[in-house]
Amino acid sequence: MTATSNLEREIVSQPAEIAALLAREASHVAAIVAQLPPFEYIVIAARGSSDHAATYAQYAWAALGGYPVALAAPSLHTLYQTPPQLRGALVVGISQSGQSPDILAVVRDGKRQGRPTVAITNDRASPLALAADHVVELGVGAERSIAATKTYTAELAIIALFAAAWSGAAKASAALATVPRALEETLAAALAALTAAPPEPFAGMDRCVCIGRGYNLATALELALKLKEVASVLAMPYSSADFRHGPIAVIGERAPVLLIMPSGKAFDDMLLLAGDLRARGAALLVLSDAPAALALADLPVPLPVPAADWLSPLSAVLPGQVLALRLAEARHLDPDQPRGLHKVTRTL
Amino acid sequence: MTATSNLEREIVSQPAEIAALLAREASHVAAIVAQLPPFEYIVIAARGSSDHAATYAQYAWAALGGYPVALAAPSLHTLYQTPPQLRGALVVGISQSGQSPDILAVVRDGKRQGRPTVAITNDRASPLALAADHVVELGVGAERSIAATKTYTAELAIIALFAAAWSGAAKASAALATVPRALEETLAAALAALTAAPPEPFAGMDRCVCIGRGYNLATALELALKLKEVASVLAMPYSSADFRHGPIAVIGERAPVLLIMPSGKAFDDMLLLAGDLRARGAALLVLSDAPAALALADLPVPLPVPAADWLSPLSAVLPGQVLALRLAEARHLDPDQPRGLHKVTRTL
Repeated sequence: MTATSNLEREIVSQPAEIAALLAREASHVAAIVAQLPPFEYIVIAARGSSDHAATYAQYAWAALGGYPVALAAPSLHTLYQTPPQLRGALVVGISQSGQSPDILAVVRDGKRQGRPTVAITNDRASPLALAADHVVELGVGAERSIAATKTYTAELAIIALFAAAWSGAAKASAALATVPRALEETLAAALAALTAAPPEPFAGMDRCVCIGRGYNLATALELALKLKEVASVLAMPYSSADFRHGPIAVIGERAPVLLIMPSGKAFDDMLLLAGDLRARGAALLVLSDAPAALALADLPVPLPVPAADWLSPLSAVLPGQVLALRLAEARHLDPDQPRGLHKVTRTL
Repeated sequence: MTATSNLEREIVSQPAEIAALLAREASHVAAIVAQLPPFEYIVIAARGSSDHAATYAQYAWAALGGYPVALAAPSLHTLYQTPPQLRGALVVGISQSGQSPDILAVVRDGKRQGRPTVAITNDRASPLALAADHVVELGVGAERSIAATKTYTAELAIIALFAAAWSGAAKASAALATVPRALEETLAAALAALTAAPPEPFAGMDRCVCIGRGYNLATALELALKLKEVASVLAMPYSSADFRHGPIAVIGERAPVLLIMPSGKAFDDMLLLAGDLRARGAALLVLSDAPAALALADLPVPLPVPAADWLSPLSAVLPGQVLALRLAEARHLDPDQPRGLHKVTRTL
């Protein structure tokens, strides 16, 4: 099969790109970790897909590094001009382009206050890269599709490298080594399960709910954004816990729900929710490696996983990217040029 | 007009309840602030509407107190059993019921690590209240409707009291004194503007987008939740900045968009977005005190505001509550008993 869009080419490039990134940057990230002065918690500034990567960091850096993560509210640094004091913080900016003035403002305020700063970006010459003490490049080449795919998984991979370096555990590095194969197998499984538009009600859906928990809350957020950007589906992301606190009220008969539920510590909670949703008549698209979960699905999509729970988001996002692509194709939308979006969004 | 539902009674009770709360708790909150040991940042654990109150705290406590705020990821403390180290943190749990085990787990982990802890809850005998060093009660009486209204504004009021105490500025207290009147005027204006179901496309909408920025990101989040819970509208909340990073792609002709845009530092950014949305053909419901904003609206709802930007969320949520109520009434839904929800949601 020949890729017909930049989006498809960028989706299928991920297993090789991420394998190369992990090999290339592991020692660099370890060296940065060794040089950082002591800090007590981490502030991350990011927008869009990079903010979803930051959500992954909120779990991975806390669980493996022990560091609480605060997601910055950039308008405090720009519109309101009331930046908080950042004593005790490591300040991290994540941005594919490295151009957004609000992300830059947070990192500059960190630097001004004498705090250590790290930039994670695809452009080492960007203002964000130039402002930070340390830069880790995504190095995945230019992303031509407006919707982020390979830059998102590259950001997750760098976050995973920091988590492994902070944990210092040999088993974290060993688990990381299983990521490239999980990406390959997941991509192959997704392309096989989603050769064209999915069956109804997913093919025709104009809205849906995407649910993940813990590490894969990030995946639910990113999958919902891809569906909005690429396929014009009004997709709403939730953690399973928050979903029960109100939004579950909107689920009626045949409502399409996408569940990201690899095996791991969040699985039992997701399985309970999947049962509740079935009882309400929802139509379930389930991404999982667990037969018990796939058996509940109207549309099961097998999800090969890396050797550790905390690494599952790196591969779990791939089927969602493929789904968004297939829906765009079936709807005769241009997957590379979503209506009214630009590659670099400069927000204050 | 006689209130016909608990929801309506609870909505209209807010000006008096919040005025009483502010008078009752100001010195108590100041005394807690005086007793707290030094800390560098704040971790808040909350779910549902309380999490939206926490989003308000993220702005108000940073801008007035200088404290960065991290929203806890409770599953780190429960499912994954990998609580982060909390050195330097003040740990705050916000929960109407004080019952949810995951919120309790975060506060207990804070206490176990020797950190100061605060509970904000409507039940002083709840497990959350018993676990914390300091308790501030909402004291607004039992909330009988399942959808939170007065407990949400009460949580905002307590957060505002902490912000004023941390700022220590006389003008912060002076601005707080203008809140009760702003609540009264906003409620009256909302009831006058929304006597019954709104005009189309708002009356018949099954989905919409709610946008706020800065302090009123919390309002957008809470308004979207009310619309989902009470009126079964699939409402999606965004900050104006994040909305431009992708989701704006879903906006087509006559798409209903609700904009919360009181005058203040975030106003110019919201006004630019409102113009963009009009150019795309969106139908705008605008909540604002600014004529320039109301002039862009298909449905303008005047929004009287308190004397300071940072206090606008306390009143700005009222018209959204009234809108959700009116939609439920027009759709013959029971506003007090949304489909499939319970008042106390216990999540792990």
